[in-house]
Formats: sequence, structure tokens, C-alpha cells
Amino acid sequence: MPRTEISKFGEFGLIKHLTEKFSIQNTSTIKSIGDDSAVLYYDHKKVLLTTDLLLEGIHFDLVYVPLKHLGYKAAVVNFSDIYAMNGQPKQMTVSLGISKRFSVEELEAFYDGIELACKNYGVDLVGGDTSASLTGLTISITCIGEGEDGQIVYRNGANPTDLICVSGDLGSAYMGLQLLEREKAVFAGNENAQPEFEGKDYILQRQLKPEARKDIIKALHEKNIIPSAMMDISDGLSSELMHICSQSHTGCRIYEDKIPISYQAAVMAEELNMNIVTAALNGGEDYELLFTVSLEDYDKIVTMEGVGIVGHMTKPELGLQLVDREGGEIALKAQGWNSLG
Amino acid sequence: MPRTEISKFGEFGLIKHLTEKFSIQNTSTIKSIGDDSAVLYYDHKKVLLTTDLLLEGIHFDLVYVPLKHLGYKAAVVNFSDIYAMNGQPKQMTVSLGISKRFSVEELEAFYDGIELACKNYGVDLVGGDTSASLTGLTISITCIGEGEDGQIVYRNGANPTDLICVSGDLGSAYMGLQLLEREKAVFAGNENAQPEFEGKDYILQRQLKPEARKDIIKALHEKNIIPSAMMDISDGLSSELMHICSQSHTGCRIYEDKIPISYQAAVMAEELNMNIVTAALNGGEDYELLFTVSLEDYDKIVTMEGVGIVGHMTKPELGLQLVDREGGEIALKAQGWNSLG
Repeated sequence: MPRTEISKFGEFGLIKHLTEKFSIQNTSTIKSIGDDSAVLYYDHKKVLLTTDLLLEGIHFDLVYVPLKHLGYKAAVVNFSDIYAMNGQPKQMTVSLGISKRFSVEELEAFYDGIELACKNYGVDLVGGDTSASLTGLTISITCIGEGEDGQIVYRNGANPTDLICVSGDLGSAYMGLQLLEREKAVFAGNENAQPEFEGKDYILQRQLKPEARKDIIKALHEKNIIPSAMMDISDGLSSELMHICSQSHTGCRIYEDKIPISYQAAVMAEELNMNIVTAALNGGEDYELLFTVSLEDYDKIVTMEGVGIVGHMTKPELGLQLVDREGGEIALKAQGWNSLG
Repeated sequence: MPRTEISKFGEFGLIKHLTEKFSIQNTSTIKSIGDDSAVLYYDHKKVLLTTDLLLEGIHFDLVYVPLKHLGYKAAVVNFSDIYAMNGQPKQMTVSLGISKRFSVEELEAFYDGIELACKNYGVDLVGGDTSASLTGLTISITCIGEGEDGQIVYRNGANPTDLICVSGDLGSAYMGLQLLEREKAVFAGNENAQPEFEGKDYILQRQLKPEARKDIIKALHEKNIIPSAMMDISDGLSSELMHICSQSHTGCRIYEDKIPISYQAAVMAEELNMNIVTAALNGGEDYELLFTVSLEDYDKIVTMEGVGIVGHMTKPELGLQLVDREGGEIALKAQGWNSLG
């Protein structure tokens, strides 16, 4: 791969070079990159705003994460936060802190991933910042989205009898990470080792190139379902249920045998002698949607593809309970990712 | 000073602890911290969006920058970008990457600075992210502002006969930085040395606790002046003039003896044997406003406090010229800060 030094461009030249092929897709984008700020127009609509900071060594490991995938994922996890409000992502800014060890080609790969995510989700890149860094790669992404009046869904609207729904499956991204960590350790011990990824494509994709559930938001809209509460599952089901129960002043009861698990994740857990339910509850990085709906929506929900009912909300005094396969009750604990611990 | 470890709080507890005393000041802030995204409402107004990434060792040096000042400055430099669009900052998000060497008390000091800036400028903190960092302090700030239809000012609207105006004075922040660097070097050689800051309070304040020119935007509004082009001076007058001339397809002619210099900055330059005009042209971090107005606004501008006319725009073929005290012409070069060089 050719290597062009970043210094060839200078700060403004570099941003221009990396972003000039991006095209504008939304009428709400009035002015994009190139001024002190971007200008947007959200007449009669609510503006949704979310931001994420991703640091090398904490949130990603460049030993096994290709830069194009990293760009794609960094964008998509922000879109996921907007969908989790029942909104549509429309604009984003990307700021990078980069050291001299990165070449222009590597940054192009990162922006290729950003561009692909923008195209797939209809989002405009409207600003950002590129600066030197003394150490690792730093990525800061802000996403702006659009919410319709009366349709925005918060975490605090769940009621004690509501059904708890989850899209897709849980724990796969975490098992993908475990696989990558295992192969990294093997490689460190023997540089001629070939990674064993056969039959693991799904869990790898879930870790390296996750998608946000735009399709689920669309399906809910088509079925005229407005969830009572919703959030995306980034830190594990347990942790997210705690947020919703705490903000909605409810308890919850979920059933172990209802938690959606993929075949590959289950096999990987078996191989690594790990408990797949624990991975699903506490693994993180699934970017699936957790939402609650009124019992009246039961008929609509059971026919929805890619959505499962995992339990129901309860009165707050009943606490947060997991019912195991034998019918026993276990109090849910948040053991989700906590890098400050 | 007492030292409380960050681990006492955990990720969510820490954000809550640091932000709970912030109050909401704007009706456009519908939902603040605590959900997947913030919710804002900008009916009939344009939304302005800007973001900045600040990295320890590149953009700031904690050896001589108190954390409260750093928080204040990090916020204010973003507000400055919104004023530079002739807008009003309204909301911001703050994301931090922090290593274990920081205590809760130090982060509180940083947020005290953020809070003071929010109060002084009427801005709501509506979100953010706090994460571990393996190395230095990382700060990412996004600011959202409000722009009135037809009153937003871009960089590309200057005309060949427009007057070039600058608020405040230039080069002081840079000379403040030179002073801090000198005292740091002295201290490194002799730990008992006392820093010599007497009579340097203004240039230190300009470097450590700059203000955004909200007052100038208000004064322009009161005088019914809408600049033809505007930006804030963060990388030095030369560099910013190049942006405006390039985007407006004009040249410019500025006069050395019109460039506003503070007494303390001039004295400091003398002491350090540096050229103060070079510092004003290329120093950076002034956060003053550079704007152009039609010749018709001359009478209004000359009576404005805190604003000076430094030259005028020209046809593009005349280039970018500095007229020195002897009447000679020198082509302007951007030698501004470029950390990727």
C-alpha cells in the first residue's frame, strides 16, 4: 500500500481532501463544511443531538479493526442513538486526533467507512476538525437527527404492564470481540499462526461492522406503533433495562429463554466456556433496540420480523427480575462495560 | 486539596455528579442530559453547529493551565464560532477522555469553568460522554446555536470595496503563551523560581481565559449592521483573511499601523525580542471577530467601540497585501498554527 505523509496536505488541505467526495443528501443541510459552523434548518421538527468520543486502546484496537470498518462503526453507533429516540439521523460532524504514524491512505480508508455509513443511512457530513495527537487515534462524532412532534420516544415513558421488546439478537458482538482477542493472543505467541475465523462471520460482522436498526424504526412506523420507552443496547440488556426502569419508575421481569441468541454466538460461548446469557445481558455493543409497548400492541408486535418479546414491565416494588429456565427468579445486575471502574 | 478517585462514582454516576448543578436557560432546550440524545426545538430559526477537539500536549499544557480556566476556554472558543456566523450559542455537549491521574475534584474544577461559561453566555449543557483514556486529557465540545433567517453571515460574502474590521486587539493571547512558556522553562531549571507575571495580567488573561465577542454581535445588531463576511480569529489574522478572500473571490489590503495591538503585548514582544506585528498576523487564539462591511456602513463602524478598520477588500487580481509603515507592500502569508505540518 502506498504511504503519503499527512504533512503533504496541511490541516485545511487534509480535511478538504478527505471530505470533498461527500455529497449532500438532506434538504435540512443548508451549509456544510467550510465555515465557522454548519447551518441547518429544522422548521417545525425537533432537533436530536448526540455525541460520542472513541479512544484508541479503550474503545477500539487497531490490531484487528480495519480503519474502514472503524469509520463505519463510529458513524453507525451515533445513528443508533438517534433511531433510539424514534428519529432519523440527518447530519454528522467528525473530529479526528491523529499522530504521524497514520498515512493519508489510512485516513482515506477511515473516511471511506464514514462515507459508506452516510450513504447507507442518508446522513450528511457537515463539519469536523482534524488535529495532531501525541498518542493514539481519537475520534469524536456528533450526530444531529430529526424527530416528529409527538413521536419522539424517551427512556422514561414505560408503564408497569408494558411488553419489553428487543430487536435482533444479543451477545453476538461481545462473542465476536472475544474471538478477536483470542486470535490476537495466539498471533502474539506465534506470528505464523493463521486466525481461525471459519463459521464465525456473523459474530465478527456484529463486532466489526454493526448496523443501526433503521429498519425496525421504519417497521414500527408502518405499523403505527409508538413505543412507550426506547433506547439502544450499547452496554448490555441489564444495564439498559436499569436505565428504563429507573427513569420510568417501574420494575421489570424478563425471561431467560426469551432472550434472543444467535447460533454462532452460542457456539463461540461454548468453545470459550463462557455463559452466553451473561454475554447477552452484559456484553454490550449490540446496537439493537430495546423498547416497551402497551399490551394493546401485542398483536402487531408478535407479527413483526426481527423483534422478540422478552418480558414485561412491572410495578417498581417488584424490582428487576430475570426468570431462569427452571422458573427461578434472579435479581438483574448491571455488570455492563464500565471503563472508569 | 482532597482527592476523590473517579472510580468512586462509575461512569453514569460521574456524569450525573459533574452536571447536576447545571440549570436550563433556553426554551429551545426540550430535553437535556439523560437520554440517547438531547431534544431541541428551533422553529423557524436556523440551527448552527460547530465542534472542536482539544488534546492535551497539542492544544493545552496542564503545567500552567488551571482546569477551571481550561473548561471556560474550551466552551468559549466554540461559542466564538457561533458568534462568527452572527448567531447566538444555545446548547453544548462536552465529552471527556480522562485517565486515572485525574481526581473528581479536578474534574469538578473543569466543569466549574464550563458552568461559568454557560452562565455568562446563556448556553445549556445538554449532553456528553465521559470515558477512560490511556493517556492525556481529551476534550470534545459541540455547540449548537441559533441564527435568524437572512442574518447569518458566511465567509464568502465580501465584496471588493468592503471595509475590513477587527474587534479588540491581536497578538495578546500569543504573547501570553510565550510568557507562560518562558516561565515554564525557568521553573524547569530552578524549582524555587517565582514566575514573573507582574504587569502581564492582560496577556495572561487573553491566553488563559479568553472571551467570545458576544458584545460586538449585539452592537452590530443594534446598529443594524449585517457584515458581508465574518469569521473569528483563531489562527491569526493572515490565515483568516486568506479564508475570507479565497471564499469571497477577492483580494485585500491591510495597513500595518492599523492593526490593533495591546500595550502589554507590545512590551512583552520587546522583552522577548519578537516582532509584535508578526505575532498579531500569525499568532492565533485571539478569538476576536474579523468582518467586512459595505462602505455605506463606514459612519456606523467608526463610532463603534472596540472595533477598528484595518483595511479594505480589493479585486482578486490585486492579491493579499500588507502595507507597512513606510508605505511598502508585502504579500500576506499564512504562517498560522499548523500542528499537522
